[in-house]
Amino acid sequence: MSAEIIDGKKLAESIKNEIKTAITEREEKSLPLPGLATILVGNDPASRTYVASKIKTTADLGIRSFSYDLDENCPQEELENLILRLNEDPDVQGILVQLPLPGHLSEDEVLHTISPKKDVDGIHPFNAGLLSRKYSEPLFYPCTPSGVIRMIQSVCPDISGMNAAVIGRSSIVGMPTAMMLSRCNATPTICHSYTKHLDEICRESDIIVAAAGSPGLVQGDWVKPGAIVIDVGINHIPDKNGPRGYKLVGDVDFESAVKRAGAISPVPGGVGPMTIAMLMANTLKAIDYR
Amino acid sequence: MSAEIIDGKKLAESIKNEIKTAITEREEKSLPLPGLATILVGNDPASRTYVASKIKTTADLGIRSFSYDLDENCPQEELENLILRLNEDPDVQGILVQLPLPGHLSEDEVLHTISPKKDVDGIHPFNAGLLSRKYSEPLFYPCTPSGVIRMIQSVCPDISGMNAAVIGRSSIVGMPTAMMLSRCNATPTICHSYTKHLDEICRESDIIVAAAGSPGLVQGDWVKPGAIVIDVGINHIPDKNGPRGYKLVGDVDFESAVKRAGAISPVPGGVGPMTIAMLMANTLKAIDYR
Repeated sequence: MSAEIIDGKKLAESIKNEIKTAITEREEKSLPLPGLATILVGNDPASRTYVASKIKTTADLGIRSFSYDLDENCPQEELENLILRLNEDPDVQGILVQLPLPGHLSEDEVLHTISPKKDVDGIHPFNAGLLSRKYSEPLFYPCTPSGVIRMIQSVCPDISGMNAAVIGRSSIVGMPTAMMLSRCNATPTICHSYTKHLDEICRESDIIVAAAGSPGLVQGDWVKPGAIVIDVGINHIPDKNGPRGYKLVGDVDFESAVKRAGAISPVPGGVGPMTIAMLMANTLKAIDYR
Repeated sequence: MSAEIIDGKKLAESIKNEIKTAITEREEKSLPLPGLATILVGNDPASRTYVASKIKTTADLGIRSFSYDLDENCPQEELENLILRLNEDPDVQGILVQLPLPGHLSEDEVLHTISPKKDVDGIHPFNAGLLSRKYSEPLFYPCTPSGVIRMIQSVCPDISGMNAAVIGRSSIVGMPTAMMLSRCNATPTICHSYTKHLDEICRESDIIVAAAGSPGLVQGDWVKPGAIVIDVGINHIPDKNGPRGYKLVGDVDFESAVKRAGAISPVPGGVGPMTIAMLMANTLKAIDYR
């Protein structure tokens, strides 16, 4: 038996097609189109690649794009003033500040400056707080956790009553994923580097979401037979024989886990494309908050 | 063997004594004293009792008290305008709106109106969001979860690596308690009415926090020998022979659990007094945000 592969790329394509259709309809009706502002500070090559990929996707879908490329030494005030201007700009529905920022900038202060109504990443504390309240709806759900939930629901629409091990407690992925799993009536356990007997917790879980940033952490024999395994890890490991000198691997040892899981997402081609698709979905949704 | 009893009343007294000392020192130095505004809407007798108890405690500790007693039919706008005025009032450091509100009022809108700097209950989404971010500090931690953590740490200062079952996922108790446990490097499992095999999850937990509002839910044989059990439940059950016709019981079957736990909090005299003490501690802390 080998697990069903949850094809994040394919699922993301179908979500993007829906968005594209909705935007074409808006165009035909001469309704305002959503706009996304991306802010990149400095020269980190990975950040540059991520932003370029997001801008390309907006173009593909018909979302207007406003990109800001700031100097590595940009002062805090200049960045915050830009955000304040974009908060007021009616052409801009979403504001995305690519993280991490250079060390002299306060990431928290910057993120708190973004209007919660334009927080298409879904990471402003106000939205994170609403997410943690069972009877409140955040204006935006965070992108990666939303992608994770969509992937799980693509193979199992109703996860209520299931146990879920969430490995990693970051504010961008682990913690909000746990909250979203609870909103779906699953029972999440929030695991991290201090957790003891992580293997046993995984073995008792119907769902494993691995977001620890630790290559191959989750072994096949940690997986309960039939479980759903979502691998959020994106780790670069050396690969002498590969064309780029490295390869991408997840937090799950795919080769062994695929033999036990009921469904599993690969790396690459799993969560990564979903995160961008959900960002685009949030940008379209942001039109409602104009 | 019988468990150590975690005496919430005694612990709360020692916290209140520290607050009283700090306020006396402020008085002697002619520094501004903290002030707490309490807002009660309508005639719910339980709410009235809670508010009276909070006002009495402020008086005992030397905290200035401003109480507002609004009519059952008070319009949303009137309540929000009162809060906006109190947000600007330099004599008021904390604003407490007693919940639940009458049905015609939007609780969310009301709570969002309170300045996060005066949110001494620690339940504004902005503060809840900061709580969920590992590297951020909320301006205020929510009162009951703070009390729970203090009680746990009174018998076990370092809980890192411990498994914790949190039963109940409310925005006031369960969810923030899980986040605070994770901040202490424990591994929380967020359980609720859809959770399967709750008894087994409890048996594998070094800490149980019961906040389900279900009398006697946690049985003694659910408790891992030596575990720390905190009972947040406050349930009124009929008691024909008692003077008031009812008695207060928690979510834990105390008689059986006390024989297995390492430490356990009773009801009454457990979490209840701690919640008020932490509210007072937050009100004192709020002076820093003036």
